[in-house]
Amino acid sequence: MTNPAAQSGTVYLAGAGPGDPALLTLRVLKLLETATTILHDDLVSPEILALANPSAELVSVGKRCGQPRVTQPEIHAMMIAAARDSQSVLRLKSGDPLIFGRASEELEALRDANIPVEIVPGITTAFAAAAQLLTPLTDRAAASRLILATGHHKAGHQTPIWTGSLPAEATLALYMPGRHFRALADDLIATGVDPDTPVAAISRATTPHQQTHVSTLASLLDEHVGPAPVLLLVGHAIKIQS
Amino acid sequence: MTNPAAQSGTVYLAGAGPGDPALLTLRVLKLLETATTILHDDLVSPEILALANPSAELVSVGKRCGQPRVTQPEIHAMMIAAARDSQSVLRLKSGDPLIFGRASEELEALRDANIPVEIVPGITTAFAAAAQLLTPLTDRAAASRLILATGHHKAGHQTPIWTGSLPAEATLALYMPGRHFRALADDLIATGVDPDTPVAAISRATTPHQQTHVSTLASLLDEHVGPAPVLLLVGHAIKIQS
Repeated sequence: MTNPAAQSGTVYLAGAGPGDPALLTLRVLKLLETATTILHDDLVSPEILALANPSAELVSVGKRCGQPRVTQPEIHAMMIAAARDSQSVLRLKSGDPLIFGRASEELEALRDANIPVEIVPGITTAFAAAAQLLTPLTDRAAASRLILATGHHKAGHQTPIWTGSLPAEATLALYMPGRHFRALADDLIATGVDPDTPVAAISRATTPHQQTHVSTLASLLDEHVGPAPVLLLVGHAIKIQS
Repeated sequence: MTNPAAQSGTVYLAGAGPGDPALLTLRVLKLLETATTILHDDLVSPEILALANPSAELVSVGKRCGQPRVTQPEIHAMMIAAARDSQSVLRLKSGDPLIFGRASEELEALRDANIPVEIVPGITTAFAAAAQLLTPLTDRAAASRLILATGHHKAGHQTPIWTGSLPAEATLALYMPGRHFRALADDLIATGVDPDTPVAAISRATTPHQQTHVSTLASLLDEHVGPAPVLLLVGHAIKIQS
């Protein structure tokens, strides 16, 4: 198996998965063990950071409630400076690095600076949540598509959480859905989605603090869903074993 | 870290990821090393199967070109018989086990037989392909949704590969797209998708045989795309570094 150590001068844009260290990939584990600088988001769990090389420099560059502690340009500058200083740089995000993060901007900054990059995928929460709930995400009878969407919009855009129609044959995985679950369910019903469609809400999936709540669009209530981060799964393929 | 050995009498429905053993999760590696019976799909790579416990019984239950060597009811019967025979059973699929597989039917059969099940997610090809191509899957400017769909339909359904409209702000990851790429691109253009939309085709992602082809919907040609399995990524978030 080819799984080389982190190389000096390279940035590794990698996904740590949903929280459980057992869901790390072998590639990310090797990079945790060998990178000299680790720039991580807040949501990367302490159990995962504990696997880092004890001599590595760990820097949290995360956000809390949308308020950056470190701005995006500052993250770019830190990655580039560390790589130019001959560090091997692990830029570690929760989930997968290429969806709903700022990968587009980080990749552009690294390309403009001529820094070599490797991208390492991670388990994104939709798949981990479905595994925890023992439910399929697609089903030959009920759903042939999975739509991953987010309720988190670009600053300044005041759009509804969900717009457009949800195809009847699709499963929706909604990341960062906010806290207005009843209003969100009403939005979906208003676009024609069956009120009896199953909904599963999972809070802090795969961590020791995981909470799940199973409902339907018609009966989903704000107060039944656990704390952020929350993922919602909506669709007729969602079948929770009771 | 909690990552227990495979237990007697339990079935582990797990994802092996796209092909590169370094993209296995630590959980799946532990199950490969400890399960006594491994029922795997054809697409699970030899490099991954080489990590199995040497004393484990390995059984290929895969399909080739849609022709089953072992029928779905036979797979159910094999899983249930092995679990009842006190084996620890790893049912290993390529990618993630809960999307575009037969998880729904396998879970139902195991539940009906009262067999304990654990589901272990895997890296699905869309994320691994984007990582290989160094392209984001979403982008705050260009795409806020990722749609995972398949061109593989239930036997007897003769529907177009792609139906319905693709939202302008979505990235499409199309699994099992068949071989008629030009016709598929025409289908997408006919539903209103911009002909200049970037397309990346990746064949045998993350394996030593990986081939990539970057194009647009307007210029995609059948003969430029490598052999199956192929994944297509379509959308304005797809930015291949040249």
